[in-house]
Amino acid sequence: MRAGESVIELAAELPLIDHHCHGVQTGTATDAEVELLATESNWPAPPGTSVFDNPFGITVRSVCAPLLDLPRHCTAEEYLRRRGELGGTEVSARLLASSGTERYLLDTGFRASTVMTPDEMATLTGAATEEIVRLEALAESIAPGCTAAGFASAFDDALEAAAANAVGVKSIIAYRHGLDFDPAPPEPAQVTAAAGRWLTAIEAGSPTRLADPVLLRHLLWRAVELRQPIQLHVGYGDPDIVLHRCDPSHLTGFAHATRTTGARLMLLHCYPYIRQAAILAQLFPHVWLDTSSAVSHAGPSSQTLVRESLEIAPMHKVLYASDAFGLPELYACGSWLWRRAVGRVLDEWLADDLIGAADARRYVEMLGRGNAVRAYGLE
Amino acid sequence: MRAGESVIELAAELPLIDHHCHGVQTGTATDAEVELLATESNWPAPPGTSVFDNPFGITVRSVCAPLLDLPRHCTAEEYLRRRGELGGTEVSARLLASSGTERYLLDTGFRASTVMTPDEMATLTGAATEEIVRLEALAESIAPGCTAAGFASAFDDALEAAAANAVGVKSIIAYRHGLDFDPAPPEPAQVTAAAGRWLTAIEAGSPTRLADPVLLRHLLWRAVELRQPIQLHVGYGDPDIVLHRCDPSHLTGFAHATRTTGARLMLLHCYPYIRQAAILAQLFPHVWLDTSSAVSHAGPSSQTLVRESLEIAPMHKVLYASDAFGLPELYACGSWLWRRAVGRVLDEWLADDLIGAADARRYVEMLGRGNAVRAYGLE
Amino acid sequence: MRAGESVIELAAELPLIDHHCHGVQTGTATDAEVELLATESNWPAPPGTSVFDNPFGITVRSVCAPLLDLPRHCTAEEYLRRRGELGGTEVSARLLASSGTERYLLDTGFRASTVMTPDEMATLTGAATEEIVRLEALAESIAPGCTAAGFASAFDDALEAAAANAVGVKSIIAYRHGLDFDPAPPEPAQVTAAAGRWLTAIEAGSPTRLADPVLLRHLLWRAVELRQPIQLHVGYGDPDIVLHRCDPSHLTGFAHATRTTGARLMLLHCYPYIRQAAILAQLFPHVWLDTSSAVSHAGPSSQTLVRESLEIAPMHKVLYASDAFGLPELYACGSWLWRRAVGRVLDEWLADDLIGAADARRYVEMLGRGNAVRAYGLE
Repeated sequence: MRAGESVIELAAELPLIDHHCHGVQTGTATDAEVELLATESNWPAPPGTSVFDNPFGITVRSVCAPLLDLPRHCTAEEYLRRRGELGGTEVSARLLASSGTERYLLDTGFRASTVMTPDEMATLTGAATEEIVRLEALAESIAPGCTAAGFASAFDDALEAAAANAVGVKSIIAYRHGLDFDPAPPEPAQVTAAAGRWLTAIEAGSPTRLADPVLLRHLLWRAVELRQPIQLHVGYGDPDIVLHRCDPSHLTGFAHATRTTGARLMLLHCYPYIRQAAILAQLFPHVWLDTSSAVSHAGPSSQTLVRESLEIAPMHKVLYASDAFGLPELYACGSWLWRRAVGRVLDEWLADDLIGAADARRYVEMLGRGNAVRAYGLE
Repeated sequence: MRAGESVIELAAELPLIDHHCHGVQTGTATDAEVELLATESNWPAPPGTSVFDNPFGITVRSVCAPLLDLPRHCTAEEYLRRRGELGGTEVSARLLASSGTERYLLDTGFRASTVMTPDEMATLTGAATEEIVRLEALAESIAPGCTAAGFASAFDDALEAAAANAVGVKSIIAYRHGLDFDPAPPEPAQVTAAAGRWLTAIEAGSPTRLADPVLLRHLLWRAVELRQPIQLHVGYGDPDIVLHRCDPSHLTGFAHATRTTGARLMLLHCYPYIRQAAILAQLFPHVWLDTSSAVSHAGPSSQTLVRESLEIAPMHKVLYASDAFGLPELYACGSWLWRRAVGRVLDEWLADDLIGAADARRYVEMLGRGNAVRAYGLE
Repeated sequence: MRAGESVIELAAELPLIDHHCHGVQTGTATDAEVELLATESNWPAPPGTSVFDNPFGITVRSVCAPLLDLPRHCTAEEYLRRRGELGGTEVSARLLASSGTERYLLDTGFRASTVMTPDEMATLTGAATEEIVRLEALAESIAPGCTAAGFASAFDDALEAAAANAVGVKSIIAYRHGLDFDPAPPEPAQVTAAAGRWLTAIEAGSPTRLADPVLLRHLLWRAVELRQPIQLHVGYGDPDIVLHRCDPSHLTGFAHATRTTGARLMLLHCYPYIRQAAILAQLFPHVWLDTSSAVSHAGPSSQTLVRESLEIAPMHKVLYASDAFGLPELYACGSWLWRRAVGRVLDEWLADDLIGAADARRYVEMLGRGNAVRAYGLE
C-alpha cells in the first residue's frame, strides 16, 4: 500500500472471484418478482410493508440507486419505476459491471430456465465463467429414465460427463434432509433399494424432488470420488430449511471421513453458524467457508458477519461469494458490502498494529480471489 | 430530522409502546426482594458479591440513581437506602415516568397478586394499558372444577371471555416443555386423555402447574383460532429453562402450520438466538421479534443485542418491549438502554450513508411504536 | 485511576492469575512442532499456506516478535529462525515473563512428559503454581492394576491423594462423550459393570482412553464430593469434539443437581457458546466462565469474545485464563490480548458513563485475579 492508503481502497478496486452464485435473470422482472427475489421468504411482505425496508432493500435504495441514475435513498416506488424504464438487460449490465467480478463460478442447477447460462453471463459481463454441478438436480434430471438397479451407474455417467466441464459440485442436503446425516457412505444395496422407492413414487406421480437421505448421501460420496470442491449449503436459506439442522458442526463426522480423500468442503453462507464453520475451517485442512448471501441480506450490518468469518478461521480459508440468484442487485450489493466489510476489518487490524501493510495487501487479495484460485485449482 | 439532529435524540424522545411487560410491584420491596427481582437467577448472589455488579445492576446504579436524587455510580448500599427512604410507590412513579411509555401491554398471568393490575398501572403512569392473557395460567385457573371430558370446552369458554378484554395471548411452552414440540394440533381424544391425567394428579395433591405437552399444544392451537398475536417466550429466562430447547428454529414447523391462519407469532427476548428469531421474522410474514429482557440484563453491552435484532429482520418486524416484572428499574433501564441502542445503530447507518434522514425518522418510529400498532391492531 | 488514566493502562499492569493452563514445553520445539502447537488442528496447514496466517499466528508475528528482538510483522520464516537461535528455554523465559502472571493453575494431566511440571514452571517464571487434577487421566493411570469391583475405591483413594495437593479438578467429558450426559450420578452397580467392560477391553489390548459415559459421570460425581472447583471443557477444541454436543446449556441439569453441594463449575473456553455459558453463570451461584484459548486463537478479533463474556454474566463470575499448552507464545498472546480486550470494553463503559472510575478499577482487578482468588479459595 502507498502511504495513506487504506485497505478499504484496496478492497474497492480488487477484481473478485465469485466462487458461488447463479445466473442473473433473463428478461425484465415484474415489481412483484423483484420483491420476491430480494428476500429469502417465499411470500410477499405483510400488507402495508415492503421488502425495500429489509436490510437488503435498504442497501439497494442506497447503493444501487445511483447506478440507475437515481438519488441515494430513493423510495421503493421510484426505484421500481426506474428499473422498469431501463429494462432488465440494461439494469443487469450496469449492476453486474459495478461488482468488479473477474470470474463467476455458477451453480446451474436451480431454476435454470429463468436465468442466464454461463455463456450468456460471460457475454453480458465480459468475465470468465465456470460451472458448478448441483448434485440433486443432476440426479433428478436422469431419474425418469432409470431402473432401480441402473440408477447408480446412470448417475455416475452423468456426473462424469457434467464434471468434465465443471470446477466443482454442490449439495443441498441441508435443504432436503439436514446436515445431521449419517457420515458413512451407504451400501450399494441400500442405494438400489432407495432408488427403487424414489422411482416408483415418481412413476406414481410424485414430484421428482429428491429428498431420500440414502440417495442424498450416495450423491455426496460419488462427488467425493471426484476429488473436487464440494459446495454445501449451510445455515440460513429459504423457509424449506430447519435452521438448527443446518449447523455445520453436524458435518464433523463427514469432515473426518473425507479428510484424506482429496475432496474439499466449501461451506456456503453459514449464517448464523459462521463461527462453527470457521472452527471447522481451522481444524480441517480441506474445509473452507464464505458468508455470501448473508452479507447481502444483512446490508448495513454485514460487516459484523464478515468480521465473524475472520475471527478464528485461517486467512487462507475464507472465500468471497455473492450467492446472487436472478436479481442483479444481489451481485452489486454482495460485492459492495463485502469489499467495505473486509476493508474495514483489515483497516482496524492495521490501526491496532496487529498486521503490517504487506500482510494487509496479501490478505485482501487472498480473500477476494487468491483463496478461490487455490481451492478450485483455477490457474 | 433537523440539521445536526441525531437518531439518538429522536429515539430519546419517542413515546414507546411496551408490547410485553408485567405490572410493577405493589408496596415497597425489601432489599433481598430487590436483589432477586434484578436477576433471572432464583438464588442470591454468592457471599461477598452483589447483583449490583451484574450488567443490569451496574446500569441501575448509573441510570436510575439520578432519578432518585443520587449521584451516578453510587454504591449498592446507597441505592438501597435511598430506595427505602422514598418507598415503593414514589420509586415506581419516578422510574416508570422516565421510561416514556405511552402504552403498556401487560401479561397478567404471572404472580399477579404481587404486582399492579392494568388499571392500577394506568392510574400510576397515566399511560394506556392493555391485557395479554397467559394461556397456561388461564388453564390452571379453571382446571380444579373440570372433568376430563369438560376441560376443552371450559377452556374455550374461559379463553373467549378473557380474549374479549385482551389484545393478545402468551404461551410459556418454552418453560414447561421446550419449543421442540410437535407442531400439529393434538386430536380431541388426546386432549381429553391428557386432561384426565392432569386433573387426576391435581386431585391427588400435585400442584396445578401445567406441563403436559399435549395440553400445552392444545392451548396454543386454541389461541391460533383467535387470529390474534401469540407471544412466545424464546431463549433466555430463569433456571427452569433448558436453553437449547428454546432455540426458535424449533418453531419452524409451527410457523409453517400457522402461516395462513391469521395468528401472529411474537418471539420474546430471543437471546442468545436473536439471529435465529430474526431469520424467522424475515421468512414468515406472521413472525415478529423483540430483545426485551435481554437488553436490560446486558446493560452496558445491550446495543450488541439490538444490533443483532436489526441485522437481517425486516424493519417492520422488530418490536420494543421491556419485559419488566415487578421492579420499576426494569422499565426505566429497558427503555433507556433500548433508546440508546436503536439510536446508535441508526446513527451509524446514517453516518455510512446507507439510510437517509427520512428513513431514519420512519424506522425509529416503527421500531418504538408503529410496528406494535400494526401487529396488535392497536389503532 | 488517576486523571487521564485508562483501564487499558490498568489492565496492562495487573498481575494475573491464570486459572487454567498447562506447562510450557521442555526443550526446543522443531518448526513443525511449533506450527502444530499453534493451532487446534491435528494436521499441518494445506500446501502453500501457514499457520502464521491464522489469527493466532498473525498475533505471534506482531506481539511476540519484538520480545525476540524481531521487528513487528516479521515473516514466519524470520520468526522460526530467531526462535531456533534463542532456544526453547530462553524463548519460554522471555515470553512467559511478558505475560505478567503471578500464579498459574496447571492442568497436569495432558501429555505431561512433554511439558514442565508445576515446580519447573515456578522455577522458570518465579510465579506461584498450583495443580489441577485431570479426572480422566487419573482414572486411566490407576486402571491397569484394578479389578472391576475394586476400581471405584481405588479411584477414590487416588483422587483423595491427588486432591490433597491440588486446588481443583478438571473433566474432559466434553471430548470423551459430550456435555449431553445424564446429569444424575450412576448407581454403584452400573459403575462396577462399566469398569469391568473397560478393564476387560484394556487387557485385550485396547488403549486405556476412558470414554464410557457411566465412568465419566462417576468421576464427575466423585469430584463433586470434594466440594472444589471442577473445570469443564466447553465448546471449541481439537477435532475430537462434536461442537454442538459441547454447548454448555446441556449442563443445565447438572448445574441444578450440584447447586447446593459445595462444588463449583468452571466453564472453560466456551466459544462459540460464550453467551450460553454466561447465562448459566448468571443463573447459578456456583457457575463461572472464561474465554481462555478462544481469545488466543481469535487474535485481532479477540475483544469480540471478551465483550460477549461480559455481556450478561455477573462481573464476579468471569475469569482470566490462557489455556496455554506447550507453546510459550500462547501464554504471551493470551495475556496480551485479554488485557487489551478487557481494558477496551471497560474504557467504553467508562466513556459511556455507565460505570465510574472506582468500579472500573474494582472490576479489572476482579476479572484478572480477584474472582479466581474467591472461586478457588486461594488466599
